[in-house]
Amino acid sequence: MPQDRSALVPVLHNIATQLRIDSVKATTAAGSGHPTTCCSAADIVATLFCAEMRFDPKRPQYSRNDRFILSKGHGAPVLYAAWAAVGFLDRKDLLTLRELTSDIEGHPTPRLPFVDVATGSLGQGLCAGVGIALNARRIGSGYRTYALLGDGESAEGSVWEAADAGAYQKLDNLCGIIDVNRLGQSRPTMWQHDMDALAARWKAFGWHPIVVDGHDIGALLDAFAEARATKGRPSMILARTLKGKGISFIEDKDGWHGKPLKKGEEADRALAELEAQYVDVAPDAIASLVAAIPKPEEVSEKAPARPDVPPPDYKLGDVVATREAYGTALARLGKLDDRIVALDADVKNSTFSDRFEKQFPDRFYQCFIAEQVMVGAAMGLASRGAIAFPSTFACFLSRAYDFIRMAAISGVPVKLAGSHAGVSIGEDGPSQMALEDLAMMRAQPNFTVLYPCDAVSAERLVELAAYHPGAAYIRTSRPKTPVIYEPGESFRIGGSKVLRQSASDAATVVAAGVTVFEALNAYDQLRAEGTFIRVIDAYSVQPIDADTLVAAGRQTGGRIITVEDHYVAGGLGDAVAEAVAAAGLTVRRLGVTEIPRSGKPEELMERYGISAASIVAAVKAG
Amino acid sequence: MPQDRSALVPVLHNIATQLRIDSVKATTAAGSGHPTTCCSAADIVATLFCAEMRFDPKRPQYSRNDRFILSKGHGAPVLYAAWAAVGFLDRKDLLTLRELTSDIEGHPTPRLPFVDVATGSLGQGLCAGVGIALNARRIGSGYRTYALLGDGESAEGSVWEAADAGAYQKLDNLCGIIDVNRLGQSRPTMWQHDMDALAARWKAFGWHPIVVDGHDIGALLDAFAEARATKGRPSMILARTLKGKGISFIEDKDGWHGKPLKKGEEADRALAELEAQYVDVAPDAIASLVAAIPKPEEVSEKAPARPDVPPPDYKLGDVVATREAYGTALARLGKLDDRIVALDADVKNSTFSDRFEKQFPDRFYQCFIAEQVMVGAAMGLASRGAIAFPSTFACFLSRAYDFIRMAAISGVPVKLAGSHAGVSIGEDGPSQMALEDLAMMRAQPNFTVLYPCDAVSAERLVELAAYHPGAAYIRTSRPKTPVIYEPGESFRIGGSKVLRQSASDAATVVAAGVTVFEALNAYDQLRAEGTFIRVIDAYSVQPIDADTLVAAGRQTGGRIITVEDHYVAGGLGDAVAEAVAAAGLTVRRLGVTEIPRSGKPEELMERYGISAASIVAAVKAG
Repeated sequence: MPQDRSALVPVLHNIATQLRIDSVKATTAAGSGHPTTCCSAADIVATLFCAEMRFDPKRPQYSRNDRFILSKGHGAPVLYAAWAAVGFLDRKDLLTLRELTSDIEGHPTPRLPFVDVATGSLGQGLCAGVGIALNARRIGSGYRTYALLGDGESAEGSVWEAADAGAYQKLDNLCGIIDVNRLGQSRPTMWQHDMDALAARWKAFGWHPIVVDGHDIGALLDAFAEARATKGRPSMILARTLKGKGISFIEDKDGWHGKPLKKGEEADRALAELEAQYVDVAPDAIASLVAAIPKPEEVSEKAPARPDVPPPDYKLGDVVATREAYGTALARLGKLDDRIVALDADVKNSTFSDRFEKQFPDRFYQCFIAEQVMVGAAMGLASRGAIAFPSTFACFLSRAYDFIRMAAISGVPVKLAGSHAGVSIGEDGPSQMALEDLAMMRAQPNFTVLYPCDAVSAERLVELAAYHPGAAYIRTSRPKTPVIYEPGESFRIGGSKVLRQSASDAATVVAAGVTVFEALNAYDQLRAEGTFIRVIDAYSVQPIDADTLVAAGRQTGGRIITVEDHYVAGGLGDAVAEAVAAAGLTVRRLGVTEIPRSGKPEELMERYGISAASIVAAVKAG
Repeated sequence: MPQDRSALVPVLHNIATQLRIDSVKATTAAGSGHPTTCCSAADIVATLFCAEMRFDPKRPQYSRNDRFILSKGHGAPVLYAAWAAVGFLDRKDLLTLRELTSDIEGHPTPRLPFVDVATGSLGQGLCAGVGIALNARRIGSGYRTYALLGDGESAEGSVWEAADAGAYQKLDNLCGIIDVNRLGQSRPTMWQHDMDALAARWKAFGWHPIVVDGHDIGALLDAFAEARATKGRPSMILARTLKGKGISFIEDKDGWHGKPLKKGEEADRALAELEAQYVDVAPDAIASLVAAIPKPEEVSEKAPARPDVPPPDYKLGDVVATREAYGTALARLGKLDDRIVALDADVKNSTFSDRFEKQFPDRFYQCFIAEQVMVGAAMGLASRGAIAFPSTFACFLSRAYDFIRMAAISGVPVKLAGSHAGVSIGEDGPSQMALEDLAMMRAQPNFTVLYPCDAVSAERLVELAAYHPGAAYIRTSRPKTPVIYEPGESFRIGGSKVLRQSASDAATVVAAGVTVFEALNAYDQLRAEGTFIRVIDAYSVQPIDADTLVAAGRQTGGRIITVEDHYVAGGLGDAVAEAVAAAGLTVRRLGVTEIPRSGKPEELMERYGISAASIVAAVKAG
C-alpha cells in the first residue's frame, strides 16, 4: 500500500470509478437493479476493500479475514464489483447479474462465498455484524467487522437493537458505515443530510460516531483509522453522500431508486461521464494496491469434530419440563463442544438457558428484550462456525420472523429454540402463547422443526439440532411432563415413535409435545372400553416420518387424527396431511381454532379441544 | 379536583396504595402474575387516572376520552385496579384475575372495553399509541394518548420505530411514560437507573424527555403538566421507580419478577405494610376526586355508513397488476369514506398506495422503513374507528409478525396489504419474495385472507376487506395480468370462482393470483389434447369455499391439484386440503419447495414447478 496519502487517494478514486462503471454496466445489462445506490457507496467500498480491510481476497471464507456485510443489499452490484476489483470474481461475470443461472443475484446471498448472511431485507446487516464481531472474540481473532448500511434503513428498529447490543458488548472490533445519500425508495429519508441529528442518535446509543464526506477518500481513510483506534465501543461512520454520485443527470435526484440506466444513449452518456473521471496514476497502481492488501494471521484450522454425547440423565417417570431439559442439554453440550453458544432475550430463567450461562458466561450473549438482534446476531455467529442457540418464548420469535426468513435464504445453520408453546402455558394468556410458531418455521422449506414431549427426547433433539448441517427449530413446553423414553433411546431427524399399537387399532392418533400425554391418556380411556388406538409421537415435525404415518394410517382403517397445541393452520395436522395425501389418506385435525384466554393449562386444553376427552370423542365419532 | 397541591397529593398517594393492595391481592389469589411491576407503576397510574386524564370512566370507549395503553402488559393488575378505582370495575371482580371465566386476564385484551389493543408482547404499546394519537387528528379531537412502558422493553427496536414516527408526526398529543424500575425478568436492565442515558436517547430521537422520581406524586403532576404544555413534539416521562415499591422485603430486589406473594404469612405481611402507608385524608376525598375527573367534550356520534361503491373501471383484457388495482381501489374508497387511512413504509410507488396519498395526504401516514410501527400504528388507528390499510412488500410484513399476532389477539380490524408476492416478482431475488405470508396470515384463526388475480377482483376484495368487521390480509402481485372479470362481477369473503368446467373434467385445479393464469393456460393446452380440467380461482384463501371445492373434487374423480406462488407449507394447498379432508378428498400441492433465486418471472415459475407446464404434467400424472 502506498505510504503516501497523496499517491493512495487517486488510486482509490480510480477503483471507486471502476466500481461505479461496473455497477452501471451490470444493472443496464440486467435491465433492473439499483445503480444509484451503488454510486453513492463506491468511494466507501473502494476504500474499505483496498486500503482498510485485512483479508485474503483468494479465500473469502478464511476465518481470520476481516468481514464485510452489505446491509443495504440492493447495492449488490457494487459488492460484486469490489470482489472483481480484488480479483476474486471475473469482471465479465458481473454482466450475468440477476440471471437465473448466475449466483450474481439481485441481492447478495451466501451462494457467493464472500457473503456470510443474505441481505436485502433492510435493517439486518448490523445485527449479523454484532454476531460476527462476537465471533471474533469467541475464536480469539483480531479480525474486524464492517457493516455498510443505508440511511433509509436506519428507521428499522432492528438497527437500534443492534446499536444497543454492540455498545453493551463493547464491540470496538465492529465498525458500521451509513451511506447517507438522503434519498429513500419513494421519497427523501426522515433526516436527509442532517448529519448532526444522525450523530446524536448513535452517540446516545453508546457508539462513537464519525461524520465524514463519503466521497472524500482521504476523509474516509481518516475515519476508518479513527474507528480502529477507538476502544471500548463500536464506531459508526456517517458518510454524507449523493445517490447516483458521478452521473450528472441522476446525481442526488429523486425518482432514480431501483432504476437501471437504459441501454443505448442513456447508459452510454453515464459511462462516458464516469470514464472521464479516471485520473492519472501509475499503470500498475491498482494492481499493486490490490496485491498489497494486508493478509490476516495464518492459523492452522482443524475440522471440528462432533463429540460423543453421553445419554441424558433421567429415569422413566421423572417429571421434567422440556424447556428445562433444553437448558440442561445446552449446558451439557457446551462442555463437550466450545462452538456451542447461547443467546437470550431476558428470559433465561424461563427457558433455562441460564444453566448454560452459569457454566459458560463467555459464550452466553445477553441481548435483553430485543429478539431481532438476538436472532440476527445468532445468524452472524452461525455463519462463522459457531453453533448458536438463540432462545426465548416461542411466541416472541414471531418478532424476528423476517430474520428467520432471511436465515432460511442464507442457509445459515442457526438453532432456534422457543419455549412456552401453546395454550398449555395457562394463566399468562394468549399474548404469551405460541400458536403459530410451527406454521412460521415449517413454511421455510429448509428448516428442521423438532418438538419433544419429554426430557429425554428434548435433550436428544437439542443434540440432533446442534449437529444438523442446516437451520433447526426446537419447540419446548412449559408444563412438567413425565419421562417416557429410556435414556438410551435413539431419535433422528425425520423420525417418529410409535408409542401404542395393536393389530386392531381403530385409528391413528398423531401427537407431539404436551398432546402426546393427552393421546396416551385417551388410549387408556378407550382401552378400558375395549377400543384400541395407535399413538405416534411425531417429534420431528419437519421433515416428518411419512412412511410410518402412511403405514399406520393404512393399518388403522385410514383414520388419522392429529392433535396439537397450536392453531390448526400450518401446524402438525397440515404436516401429517401433506405427508399422507399421496397415499390417499386424509386427516382429522384437532388444534386450537380461536383466540384463547387465560386459564389453567388443563382447562384450556379441554376448552380448545386438544385434551384426551377431545381425542376420545374424535375416535368415537368414527 | 382539589386546587391545592398539598391536598391532592395525599389523596393520590392513597389511591396508589389501594392499587398496590389490589394488585397484591389479585395476584396472590391467582397464584401467578406480576405484583412487583404493578407496585413500581402505582403512583404513575394513580396520578394519570385521577389527576391528569380527561375521560368518562363510565364510557371507556367514548371517542373523545383520553386514551391509556399499558404497554408493559404484565402490569395488568394495576390497570384493572385503576378501573376499579374510578368505578368502572367492581373491586371484588379483581380477584377473578386469570380465571378462565373472567375477562380480567393475565395480560390486557380488548375483551375489556378500556383496552384498545392487547399488550403483553413488549414494545408494542407505543406503536399503537402513535396510531391512537394520529387518530385524534383524524377525528379532530383534542384527546391525549398516554402509553406506559417498562424500562426493559425499551430494548425492543419497535419502541424506537415509534419514537421516530411520533417525532416525525410532531405528536404533542402523545405522552409516553417509562417505569424505570431497573429490573428486568431475569436480571437488571441494560441501563438500570442511568436516567441521563435514557433521557439522551429520547432527546436524540426528537422527543421532549422529562426525568422524574416516579414515586413523587407532586413531581409526576408537574411532569404531566410539562408534557401537556410541550408543543411540536411528543414527551417521554422517564420515571425512576423501585420494583415492588412499598413492600420492604421485595422492593428493588432481583428475583421477584412475575412472582406472586404466597397466600398466608408472606402476602399478609406485604398487605399489612401497604395498609400502614395510607395517610389521613377527608373521608370522601377519593370519591370526590374520582367524581371530579374532567370529562371530554360531548359530540354527537352517528354510526358510520358503508358507502355504495361503483364497479371498478376496467374492460376485459386490460392488463393491470393487482398491486396497482389495490392503489386505485384505496384512492376510490378514500373518496367515499373518510375513515379510510393508509400507511406506508417507503414503498408507496411500488404498492401504489401513493395514489391514495396524492388525493388524501392528511390520511396517509408515512412510516419510512419501519414495518413494526406501520402495523402497530394501524392497529391503534383501527382500534379507534379508522379503516386502516398498512401496505408494503408482503415479505416485509414478516417484520411485523408479532404485531400481526397481537392484532389477531386484539381483534382489531386492521387491513394489511402485501404486494410483490412470490417468485413471480423475478429478478430482485428471494429476499424480496413473500413465500410464507399466506402461512403467516392463515395461522391467525380470525384473519380473512384474500388473494386477487386480476384488477377487478383486486378492487372488489379491497372493498370487501375494508368493510369486513375483522382483520384482513390482501395479497397482491407484481406482474401485470389480464382482467378476466366483468366490472359488475360480485365477490364474497369465503367465495371462489369456477372459471372452467365441463361434465368430463379430469381434475380440479385450484389456483389464486398469478397461478390462475397458469391454470387457464394449462386448460388450453390440455383441451387441445382433448382433456378437460376444472379451474377454480380461490380468491378467498381464508375462509375458503369448501362447498365448491368438495363438489368440484367429487365431480372430477376426486383429483384436486392446487398451484400457488408460495411455499407449500401453510399456503393455499393446505387450506384446500383441510377444507376437503372431511369429504375424504386429498390434494396434490404444487408450490415452491426450495429457496428460489433471481431470474425472470416466467423462468422462476417454470423452475419452481408452478407454471402451466407443471400443472399439465400433474394432470397427466393421473
